[in-house]
Amino acid sequence: MNPLPERVTIREVALRDGLQNEAPIPLAAKLEVLSAIVATGVTEIEATAFVSPTKVPAMADAADLAAELRHFPGITFSALVASPNGARRAVAAGLQTVQFVVAATDEFSKANVGRSSAEATGQIAEIVAIAHDADVTVEVIIATAWDCPFAGPTSADRVVEIVEAARHSGVDRIAIADTIGTATPRRVTDLIERVRPALGPLPLGAHFHNTRGVGLASAYAAVSAGVTRLDSSAGGLGGCPFAPGATGNIATEDLVYLLGDSGIDTGISLAAAIEAARVAQQAVGHDLPSALLRAGDRIRK
Amino acid sequence: MNPLPERVTIREVALRDGLQNEAPIPLAAKLEVLSAIVATGVTEIEATAFVSPTKVPAMADAADLAAELRHFPGITFSALVASPNGARRAVAAGLQTVQFVVAATDEFSKANVGRSSAEATGQIAEIVAIAHDADVTVEVIIATAWDCPFAGPTSADRVVEIVEAARHSGVDRIAIADTIGTATPRRVTDLIERVRPALGPLPLGAHFHNTRGVGLASAYAAVSAGVTRLDSSAGGLGGCPFAPGATGNIATEDLVYLLGDSGIDTGISLAAAIEAARVAQQAVGHDLPSALLRAGDRIRK
Repeated sequence: MNPLPERVTIREVALRDGLQNEAPIPLAAKLEVLSAIVATGVTEIEATAFVSPTKVPAMADAADLAAELRHFPGITFSALVASPNGARRAVAAGLQTVQFVVAATDEFSKANVGRSSAEATGQIAEIVAIAHDADVTVEVIIATAWDCPFAGPTSADRVVEIVEAARHSGVDRIAIADTIGTATPRRVTDLIERVRPALGPLPLGAHFHNTRGVGLASAYAAVSAGVTRLDSSAGGLGGCPFAPGATGNIATEDLVYLLGDSGIDTGISLAAAIEAARVAQQAVGHDLPSALLRAGDRIRK
Repeated sequence: MNPLPERVTIREVALRDGLQNEAPIPLAAKLEVLSAIVATGVTEIEATAFVSPTKVPAMADAADLAAELRHFPGITFSALVASPNGARRAVAAGLQTVQFVVAATDEFSKANVGRSSAEATGQIAEIVAIAHDADVTVEVIIATAWDCPFAGPTSADRVVEIVEAARHSGVDRIAIADTIGTATPRRVTDLIERVRPALGPLPLGAHFHNTRGVGLASAYAAVSAGVTRLDSSAGGLGGCPFAPGATGNIATEDLVYLLGDSGIDTGISLAAAIEAARVAQQAVGHDLPSALLRAGDRIRK
């Protein structure tokens, strides 16, 4: 087995992936969650999404939220976009990174953005041009990289094709996403090994949901395979429209516990992360699936 | 990395570890859960504990439950015991395996059974004599093998000492238990590697709680390190008295999903395991932490 990395960068996604399936909450409540998240020591935060406000009403305040981000220096903020137009809005709003989602299966891509996977892949170059003109970083997130809720297991060949297309279009980094929370460690390792040769010098991130309870196991497998960028959300906020009632993103505090206990530095305070989860839970007004929020840190006082 | 094993034996512990911290439920309700568990295809079931009925009222019906087990042929039933007297009761009740718990730290051992770890270790030989006289299998479960809620991290040397003592006392197998759900994959692998030379020919099992969300990650690490015996409970039933409100044992259906998706055979039907979790949830009358019970299997219909 390879040695574990000394450090992993966690991107906090509660404000976007976490909230996007929730009933919209006021901007002030989002800013309370944001403040609690910033206090954890995290350095990268996915703040919002520049997408259709009718399709995703919880993100309708994207520009307003973006205007507040200057109050939080030292953090790199990103936004998810689903089209060149979204990228223009994100750049205009001052975001430092845009994350463009390309689903690896046509079925999911059409359901999600009304375009085939190839059509979405074809938009990468335009988004890179828009972003790089403004010195904004571009990450392509490959959704349904392991499984599609409509089409079943995803072809690794297709994931590799998107990686190659993204690289040739000049993106700055790539992430592979377990959109519906079905990946397991062995398949995580397998896909990373398939993707790696196509990456060239680009950094690879990974994004897991805990829908089937195995998100942290998959995250650990990714780290063991050399991935040093992971997404997670405070409290495990974030539902899955394809599995009603299921748990959401892997929880930041649970991930920080797992990595910290494995000797891997994240720069995040576990106590502050548990507190951020508590604030997030209060903001949405229902229980979150986080384990640490219930159990606390390792040793009971 | 070693190749994964082709097959893992899951022991279902919902009826003992799962129920022991719950308010007692009627024997008839236990038998409903048992029937649902048997229907999953599992071959080993921890049925009950022969311990103090005043300390663990949920297990006060141990002998009555044991009398029903003859209706379920083809299953190997075990019971937990905490003393030679408990072993005598289990043997008299017709159990095929006794599991004797020895905590690796004095603090936990005294709180749990009123004896030091060395005193409990000293009882192994007597329990082996009682059990083997009746052709009953003996497993020693080393509790608090990674961490103790009172003493902090457990010395691996002490775990190895107990393994050696158990082996020299003639036990048939050994398990290491993450009693409070704090172990993480790297520490799981480390302890297994420390313990293995002391095992000789004895099989090693592992027992994880999901208290901090990492139980499945730890279970997968154990399997990756060659462990082929794991405990889990239907629905993730099973609290932790040291972390009120926390999640319990790793859930059988989540573990079956994880292992099955990794190409490892458990002989357990995932659909039947989800149904058993539903029956267990109904029996205790409150939500269980299982992920699969909420999310279902991989592909949505």
